[in-house]
Amino acid sequence: MKLTAKAARATGEGGPAVVLFAPQLGENVGQVARAMLNFGLTDLRLVRPRFGWPNAKAVAAAAGAHAVLNAMRIFPSLEEASADLHHLFATTARPREMEKPVMTAEGAAVEARRLAGGGRRVGFLFGPERSGLSNAELALADAIVTIPLNPAFSSLNLAQAVLLCAYEWFLAADRTPPVQGEVPDEPPATKAELAGFLAFLVAELDRAGFFRSPTRRGSLVRAIEVMFERRRPTRAELNLLYGIVKQLAAAGGRPRNL
Amino acid sequence: MKLTAKAARATGEGGPAVVLFAPQLGENVGQVARAMLNFGLTDLRLVRPRFGWPNAKAVAAAAGAHAVLNAMRIFPSLEEASADLHHLFATTARPREMEKPVMTAEGAAVEARRLAGGGRRVGFLFGPERSGLSNAELALADAIVTIPLNPAFSSLNLAQAVLLCAYEWFLAADRTPPVQGEVPDEPPATKAELAGFLAFLVAELDRAGFFRSPTRRGSLVRAIEVMFERRRPTRAELNLLYGIVKQLAAAGGRPRNL
Repeated sequence: MKLTAKAARATGEGGPAVVLFAPQLGENVGQVARAMLNFGLTDLRLVRPRFGWPNAKAVAAAAGAHAVLNAMRIFPSLEEASADLHHLFATTARPREMEKPVMTAEGAAVEARRLAGGGRRVGFLFGPERSGLSNAELALADAIVTIPLNPAFSSLNLAQAVLLCAYEWFLAADRTPPVQGEVPDEPPATKAELAGFLAFLVAELDRAGFFRSPTRRGSLVRAIEVMFERRRPTRAELNLLYGIVKQLAAAGGRPRNL
Repeated sequence: MKLTAKAARATGEGGPAVVLFAPQLGENVGQVARAMLNFGLTDLRLVRPRFGWPNAKAVAAAAGAHAVLNAMRIFPSLEEASADLHHLFATTARPREMEKPVMTAEGAAVEARRLAGGGRRVGFLFGPERSGLSNAELALADAIVTIPLNPAFSSLNLAQAVLLCAYEWFLAADRTPPVQGEVPDEPPATKAELAGFLAFLVAELDRAGFFRSPTRRGSLVRAIEVMFERRRPTRAELNLLYGIVKQLAAAGGRPRNL
């Protein structure tokens, strides 16, 4: 059943609330809506946005996630935005000295799923683009979420942070097996090694007059390439194949020993 | 040790190659570079980009990830872009009928880490923004990566797809524990329930003349709020506290039984 955002929120099926504290750009709110809906989140709340609403840039950036924007609510304070929530997870770039649990996005998602499964209402809080959340807002949160990042370059924008948290929320209940189908265990040759062998083989076949009709040459060459690309020979197997082709080509001039 | 992108690639420390097939917008390439560097990836390769290079929009969108753009390489074909790779993971929105393993981003990251740990060179392939990869490009890949998404709304752009794959690659070796610090197991009251109790308590304290000095009232009220917010009382505990406060306030007029 496909729910409207409002109905999903009313039944608690829209996932955790996403609370944006004092967002600065309408465009970012649109990107947040898009990131949320990609992972089934529909409950977006803004606290004191620094732009007017409705906002054309937000609508354009939402890329079709209008249901989230239409159901979005704006609040004058974080207290009011989170009044119906039991648990608030606050995201920060760097965890500060606070007497609160600190979680990865994955850890927070698992915990949020556990709480939501027990009937609690959960929200994820994100700060303004430039400054992030202040200690005053963090004080209202029950846990701190910090996304693991390259310490030498951590430049995650608002929509990306929401994307990763929403992704983890979705994954925490997703049943897709991580790998379907067989994974070969032998080391294959590199693409260049295989391409080198295929070029060699086709040249030898040309010399041997294998491609009798020029019109069929293209499709035959492609069929040979597909055959080898599917099987992904190892380097040792390629060496064996080189030997076979060379031997056959060298013997081509001589009468076969029938 | 902080490596340049080129040095990182030479030593294999820059993580999997990210190969963009026929990207349409320079801006997206900049966002991809930023997403990559956030998770320590530095080896970016473009096949037949549909824009000129260098590209001012790419530089602006990279948000400081210049090392990735400076080391970026452009190739005339996918075969040349992947010539030195042993394994190519191709991302698609929907898995097609192919005799290849299909993986989630998480499954692919774990597999890529395993392969890279064994000395293999690995790449992730992403298609053009609008059309995605065709079957011809997918045929060159060893595995198909499909990111789990809300089936009713799957609108992931190029940089977001790269972000999620790079994030999973980073996580596959990240040692951050998912939760640090104690997570309370009792259901706390909602924020609104707690705020309601605190307002009631302060009103009773006002009536009882608790705040002797008006100048100190603000800091005392804040100290009370912090005390209760930190402990997050359950709804049952709140009811108990209501009872206690009411009883004390009602008894306030009567002489204490010493």
